[in-house]
Amino acid sequence: MKALVKPYGKVGLRYVTDVPIPEIGPRDVLVRVLATSICGSDLHIYDDDPVFRERIPDGMIVGHEFCGRVEQIGEQVTTVAVGDVVAVESHVVCGTCYYCLNGVPHLCQEMAGIGFDRPGCFAEYIAVPAENVFPKPPSLSIEVAAFIEPFGNALDTAQRVDLFGKTVLITGLGPQGLMALAIARAAGARCIIGSEVHPYRRQMAQQVLSLHTDTRRTTRDAILDATQPDLAERIFEITDGLGVDVVLEMSGHPSAITLAGTVLKNNGHLVALGLPAQPVEFDWSHHLVLKGATLHGIYGRHLYQTWFTACELLDSRAVQLEPLITHRLPLERFEEGFHLLKEGQAVKVVLYPNGTETPIEGSQR
Amino acid sequence: MKALVKPYGKVGLRYVTDVPIPEIGPRDVLVRVLATSICGSDLHIYDDDPVFRERIPDGMIVGHEFCGRVEQIGEQVTTVAVGDVVAVESHVVCGTCYYCLNGVPHLCQEMAGIGFDRPGCFAEYIAVPAENVFPKPPSLSIEVAAFIEPFGNALDTAQRVDLFGKTVLITGLGPQGLMALAIARAAGARCIIGSEVHPYRRQMAQQVLSLHTDTRRTTRDAILDATQPDLAERIFEITDGLGVDVVLEMSGHPSAITLAGTVLKNNGHLVALGLPAQPVEFDWSHHLVLKGATLHGIYGRHLYQTWFTACELLDSRAVQLEPLITHRLPLERFEEGFHLLKEGQAVKVVLYPNGTETPIEGSQR
Amino acid sequence: MKALVKPYGKVGLRYVTDVPIPEIGPRDVLVRVLATSICGSDLHIYDDDPVFRERIPDGMIVGHEFCGRVEQIGEQVTTVAVGDVVAVESHVVCGTCYYCLNGVPHLCQEMAGIGFDRPGCFAEYIAVPAENVFPKPPSLSIEVAAFIEPFGNALDTAQRVDLFGKTVLITGLGPQGLMALAIARAAGARCIIGSEVHPYRRQMAQQVLSLHTDTRRTTRDAILDATQPDLAERIFEITDGLGVDVVLEMSGHPSAITLAGTVLKNNGHLVALGLPAQPVEFDWSHHLVLKGATLHGIYGRHLYQTWFTACELLDSRAVQLEPLITHRLPLERFEEGFHLLKEGQAVKVVLYPNGTETPIEGSQR
Amino acid sequence: MKALVKPYGKVGLRYVTDVPIPEIGPRDVLVRVLATSICGSDLHIYDDDPVFRERIPDGMIVGHEFCGRVEQIGEQVTTVAVGDVVAVESHVVCGTCYYCLNGVPHLCQEMAGIGFDRPGCFAEYIAVPAENVFPKPPSLSIEVAAFIEPFGNALDTAQRVDLFGKTVLITGLGPQGLMALAIARAAGARCIIGSEVHPYRRQMAQQVLSLHTDTRRTTRDAILDATQPDLAERIFEITDGLGVDVVLEMSGHPSAITLAGTVLKNNGHLVALGLPAQPVEFDWSHHLVLKGATLHGIYGRHLYQTWFTACELLDSRAVQLEPLITHRLPLERFEEGFHLLKEGQAVKVVLYPNGTETPIEGSQR
Repeated sequence: MKALVKPYGKVGLRYVTDVPIPEIGPRDVLVRVLATSICGSDLHIYDDDPVFRERIPDGMIVGHEFCGRVEQIGEQVTTVAVGDVVAVESHVVCGTCYYCLNGVPHLCQEMAGIGFDRPGCFAEYIAVPAENVFPKPPSLSIEVAAFIEPFGNALDTAQRVDLFGKTVLITGLGPQGLMALAIARAAGARCIIGSEVHPYRRQMAQQVLSLHTDTRRTTRDAILDATQPDLAERIFEITDGLGVDVVLEMSGHPSAITLAGTVLKNNGHLVALGLPAQPVEFDWSHHLVLKGATLHGIYGRHLYQTWFTACELLDSRAVQLEPLITHRLPLERFEEGFHLLKEGQAVKVVLYPNGTETPIEGSQR
Repeated sequence: MKALVKPYGKVGLRYVTDVPIPEIGPRDVLVRVLATSICGSDLHIYDDDPVFRERIPDGMIVGHEFCGRVEQIGEQVTTVAVGDVVAVESHVVCGTCYYCLNGVPHLCQEMAGIGFDRPGCFAEYIAVPAENVFPKPPSLSIEVAAFIEPFGNALDTAQRVDLFGKTVLITGLGPQGLMALAIARAAGARCIIGSEVHPYRRQMAQQVLSLHTDTRRTTRDAILDATQPDLAERIFEITDGLGVDVVLEMSGHPSAITLAGTVLKNNGHLVALGLPAQPVEFDWSHHLVLKGATLHGIYGRHLYQTWFTACELLDSRAVQLEPLITHRLPLERFEEGFHLLKEGQAVKVVLYPNGTETPIEGSQR
Repeated sequence: MKALVKPYGKVGLRYVTDVPIPEIGPRDVLVRVLATSICGSDLHIYDDDPVFRERIPDGMIVGHEFCGRVEQIGEQVTTVAVGDVVAVESHVVCGTCYYCLNGVPHLCQEMAGIGFDRPGCFAEYIAVPAENVFPKPPSLSIEVAAFIEPFGNALDTAQRVDLFGKTVLITGLGPQGLMALAIARAAGARCIIGSEVHPYRRQMAQQVLSLHTDTRRTTRDAILDATQPDLAERIFEITDGLGVDVVLEMSGHPSAITLAGTVLKNNGHLVALGLPAQPVEFDWSHHLVLKGATLHGIYGRHLYQTWFTACELLDSRAVQLEPLITHRLPLERFEEGFHLLKEGQAVKVVLYPNGTETPIEGSQR
Repeated sequence: MKALVKPYGKVGLRYVTDVPIPEIGPRDVLVRVLATSICGSDLHIYDDDPVFRERIPDGMIVGHEFCGRVEQIGEQVTTVAVGDVVAVESHVVCGTCYYCLNGVPHLCQEMAGIGFDRPGCFAEYIAVPAENVFPKPPSLSIEVAAFIEPFGNALDTAQRVDLFGKTVLITGLGPQGLMALAIARAAGARCIIGSEVHPYRRQMAQQVLSLHTDTRRTTRDAILDATQPDLAERIFEITDGLGVDVVLEMSGHPSAITLAGTVLKNNGHLVALGLPAQPVEFDWSHHLVLKGATLHGIYGRHLYQTWFTACELLDSRAVQLEPLITHRLPLERFEEGFHLLKEGQAVKVVLYPNGTETPIEGSQR
């Protein structure tokens, strides 16, 4: 079958056409990949970033956001049937470690990541444990279903704190920041302020915000240029000098973390999803202790509460992610997709390993 | 001045015109009442319901939901000025009891209720502690400002549990049930089911629901007739057999409490604001213990977190209460208002003790 | 093998000696039962109480609290080995229903109870899923390990609310009330009040309380006779007129529920484990709404957070359950044990289906 | 009267004898200072640390931890009487700012600190608002009552997370770390690990731990030398490789923060009271995000929930602070006390501005 694999220690991915179709175990399913999207971490893998270099064996198939059709099921599988169209949780957890047994399997010590530690979805077929598949709601397109997985991260970040009636700052408006923005409004945030470096993404943010905001409503929402020196002043202006109740930190940039700490109210909450490459200089005294603030780290998605909520939000169109799909390409043209993303000229690029003509239900395509 | 007073042990209220204008203490303010609304408990007082009979001294001025203009301030008052237009918290708390000192002043043991234990607002003027007044946001009409107080109860009920993405049942769609309905949607509830006996109120509920729901959205919302025998079945149908995540119990009716317990999911939350007149028969084993459910009693409003949130929601038009104002009358025509409410032909009736022509800011009037 | 089975529709249990040793599936283990204790629900089954009659098929082996040694493991079992001494979670959950997938498997819709819906542990051997066994900490005796399972219920009840520095009322001092009493003190409860009808249990409560209370400490603890008419007055006296912060309701008696509601502080918490046989008359207005109280229903145990905590508390001797073992009998003398429990002359009766001489580690025996 | 005042821009404090006894306003009380203790921040003030230099006006009386007898009350004061022996909350809040009105007065924007922004207690007399005094429980000595105030910080830190059954690391065993250690055990922490640089304090920690630990109990408690290079390894060893559930960070040292982040479990809680002098280098990705950790900043004390709990814990001897009083000196010998503290040879030094012979109730003296 066709697949994109990672050559160890080299930049780029290799398009290969002779990978064997994977075999499945008794509790696995074989999924034909209908649509798969490129994640920010895939860009790092492409670039041979040292962060991932040692984790990914030579020749590993990468990719972990996808939707597909079940082609074959293991003999002990009862929860899914051949023909089902499914989205897939990319974290394969052990089920027996301390964290799995303590109600937080998403923090499993032995987690194997699809597209990192085990073969990924930039391929025609993939084998995954049956417990990792989640039925695609009929109303969803296969493209949106492909990125329920990262949407889950944004959702866990945005719903860690009740945002109803709150003033929220979102730092970093990449795919997950944009999703968080839609979620924050759907959850009743009173005022949403976004900060982002790229003009393209700021424009997209305005569009996402409009799409999710009832026109009868008055807001002080603002999408700000993160490169402006007076960013904190602007935020205090918008918030009558009080600052924000909640920050959703989606960028991992040290300057965003400093901004977050600066404009957070006393008693405020900072929810952190972004991953700085290095330790950051953090004003522990003024931005945490003296404010009586709370900081929440978010990793993965709750298994599977987050999936239920994600599907319900998308199915009811409380959150609409179609505008995030900026490009659609067959798998073999992956280089174009990676290029666009690196240039900041795309949000979600969808790849089709099995052709784009696949007829599939989904009124919202 | 003119006022409505309660004759002890008799049905009805007495309209009097010779009450002295109240004097104020050093920490009080004198408020000229611009608009005041009739609460459900005022109906009980009118009817000489035994629940309130002994609490209310003969000749007491009643009424506790109002907006007015500050006419005079006590010598130690610094937080409010003459001319300010204000809404007023009706619970006057002691500030020194166990509960006041433990962060829950709304549960004060020595609370004096305006219009119950101390003179109310069905009058041209009223004296209240300066700490009980809250500035009316300029965008709000005086009528809506008059019922921020009961809105606060609905708000504390609806925001006790994060409703984002949840399926919510609201039992009882009187003024507070209708407010809760608007709040639940603004807070991102996925599916809202209301149950109510009166057709007039069910119709109003549909209107409130439409007003707060983005037309681009798909919902399974339903406003049901509480007299139908198959109510629980209908709710299970709507919720794919699962039941609801949260119930907001606004009615105090035993049958609503039974319904609530029946259709609540395992691990669900029931938030109770309604006050049954008698103890109820409650299926403790099946509706609380075996479901692992949580029940929350709500009394009063948080002082003053709830006021901040209430004003912000109304100011941003995230919640719109204008449609609830079904009737406007000068104070002396109060009998009409009480009659309409008892017939179930009104939601909020606003009385004007100082004439209806009062020019006042408020774009949303 | 020997076992106790339930004859449908008749009072009592039947001691049989010709039951085949159970076969195990690929993910099960076969456990040789070393010690098993009689639960309150076993008494109801013995009495042919209608509550359980239809649930339990004719000839079902009953019993669900036990500790044993693994004799055989299924071919796919990797988490436990032959020879391991284990305690067992009696709720066998489906792993695939809405609740299992939403982080609350202890509220599984398809739960099969050992000793109710599938063969129990009043037998020489039992087959259980490998995921339901938990290693016995070496320091624990097999007898204490046998009732980690009910201890888990008491623990989930007592730790639902942080008890540190709190005044706690425990209504009902049967085995779980006594365990809750030990836990409450270990968790730092300032003042513990217990109410119980049986003098034997009140005496046991005093002993358990002494065992867990540092002698250097001053407390206002009291174990009260639940039949006294002035119970509420006594509790208000002890608590300086304020009432209690938390009630742990372990009895299921309507009078205990009324007492709980009466003496609960405003803003207090009532945690309910006891199961009334019928709906109760509950003062919803005064005991829930007007107090701003919270009621928590508890069912089962968290899988498996509660098991970890339970084992740690017992291993460190923060909680000591040995005194609760009042009688030890070979399986065939089960009638004596049931009789003693019905007379209120025992707390935990341990039965030995494989003889009492079994040599087993456990310094605390 | 006699007092210790701060000369602007100079090291040390000045002992003066001619300060006028303060006058009180209508809502204030005049307190005769019976016992006052030296806080760590007093050491910084003594040293003319730039952190406090500009905040403290020339000639300001310093000191903020004290117990005294009410000598005079303002005309509007009703909650306290002449002769009452009281402890005093040192944060004088405005009551009208955004935070005071939102249920978090301890985070007041306009807070005036006794001994910083307004005259302190290193003096014979002090005037304070009546609402800031709290009655000394009769069983407490005046010395212990003098430091209920800092005990409140330790208490808010230690009870932010339920410690029952948890493994807790406390970094920094100065007065507040030692108090936290006592609280953690009283709250049921299973295993307490302390880290501290000074041998004197480590020895004191052992003593405090023994005093609060029932001898019947088995623990893995350890007091570790914070200068050891293998500190993290030691902690993983003690915790079977899992790390700790909770860290209470009381030191403000960057190395303690790094240690905390290193040994924290996934899903763990880090509660921060210590104030680093500079921003710290913090491994945001590994110590917050990827662990799914929660960080809580603590400032001040809840007004006045924390005071109630503090007094109850001390009154019942659940927490015993007497051993922390290592030195007692008349006010004029303050230099000795400051010297001892700077040398790390004292924990709490109590000063007596009105002589040490003051007869006062308190069985625990």
